[in-house]
Amino acid sequence: MTKVTAQMSISLDGCYAGTRAADTADWLESAEAAGFFRVTRWATDAAAWRERQGFAGGERTTNSDNIAETFAAAGAYVMGRRMADGGEVPWGEVPPFRAPVFVVTHRPRPVLHRGGGTSFTYVTDGVASAVAQAKEHAGGKDVQVAGGGSLVRQVLALGLLDELELHVAPVLLGDGLRLLGPGLGLGAKEGIELIPIRVIEGEGITHLRYRVEGVRPLVLDNRGRDEGPVLLAEG
Amino acid sequence: MTKVTAQMSISLDGCYAGTRAADTADWLESAEAAGFFRVTRWATDAAAWRERQGFAGGERTTNSDNIAETFAAAGAYVMGRRMADGGEVPWGEVPPFRAPVFVVTHRPRPVLHRGGGTSFTYVTDGVASAVAQAKEHAGGKDVQVAGGGSLVRQVLALGLLDELELHVAPVLLGDGLRLLGPGLGLGAKEGIELIPIRVIEGEGITHLRYRVEGVRPLVLDNRGRDEGPVLLAEG
Repeated sequence: MTKVTAQMSISLDGCYAGTRAADTADWLESAEAAGFFRVTRWATDAAAWRERQGFAGGERTTNSDNIAETFAAAGAYVMGRRMADGGEVPWGEVPPFRAPVFVVTHRPRPVLHRGGGTSFTYVTDGVASAVAQAKEHAGGKDVQVAGGGSLVRQVLALGLLDELELHVAPVLLGDGLRLLGPGLGLGAKEGIELIPIRVIEGEGITHLRYRVEGVRPLVLDNRGRDEGPVLLAEG
Repeated sequence: MTKVTAQMSISLDGCYAGTRAADTADWLESAEAAGFFRVTRWATDAAAWRERQGFAGGERTTNSDNIAETFAAAGAYVMGRRMADGGEVPWGEVPPFRAPVFVVTHRPRPVLHRGGGTSFTYVTDGVASAVAQAKEHAGGKDVQVAGGGSLVRQVLALGLLDELELHVAPVLLGDGLRLLGPGLGLGAKEGIELIPIRVIEGEGITHLRYRVEGVRPLVLDNRGRDEGPVLLAEG
């Protein structure tokens, strides 16, 4: 059965890139890029990622196996508009996806066909529609939320994400674009519960995979009034 | 050799408690408490934690072993003032620490001696002094930063933390008191690098231990101008 999954590289403090660059800035010189390159370096170094991009070299590691598995599992993608726009030129005539990509956008545009099995379909009627269309075209494989972070949050908030894999890089960025947190539409005493289903210790990176259970109330446990609160949090 | 370590339970989105309660609020009824109880529930359920608090029951699990190890490793603690104030009454005559605790505060106060080997020494000349005094009194065991979150950040920012263990609960709180992130004193293209040294899959919780390397510049990798950026981040 087709699952909807997302895989994101984040810092240990939860950021997938550094502080957001101004639209007028040179992105490659920005703190946003510096953070992004740091947390995704494990992928850049991996043979499976480099081969898919057409780059030479790369390491055949546990990290590389993880990437190969992720590519192989994808039947279709959903993608945010900014990521699609930013990638259109650098991805070139044979983008690395090799599957239909459904781009969530407000701007209608004809389907863009590329080599190697990649196509970009521009979906203007919302995230849920893009996910539904991707499911129809996934051929029984997974729909992967390619990113960026805001799209992952939207798919989560809509209750449409089945699995989330975080590739946790051992670095604290201090500030930056945060993948999870605000923007999930949760009430003050609600959480989105997940179940850890796989932990892999990669080379300098930790791969944590979760099944998403859904929104649940946060309930006080038995350290409440009967026994007294024993440890207290501090801001 | 005495190491300075910290152990904190956090949600998958990096919060150790829910949204901060107003000082006038009933803390136990607050979203802050609801989030805190959710992310620390694994400890509450564990036999080693319950025994140390004098509570009945508890599960003898991998999680419990982790707690027993942490208690056994502690020779002295440093603690934030809010946590110490909040715990003073509920911890009672025999607090769970059984070691000297050095409380970082602005308010001078005589040493408070409690049963079972716990004492509270109030340190008014800063975090580094509290850490140094705790090291002197740790008897060769570890100094543990008991919390709260702001003290952990301060010890990290001062370059005084040797190891950090995060107990990651599989829940997204959406908003709350964030352990890591802003407040680390990092420049825009700097990060604090760590090295993953241990991963344990506990019962419904993932224990991630890191050695702290220190502040390093974030450097662009070879996806820069030569090959073109292949994946872009989105805010």
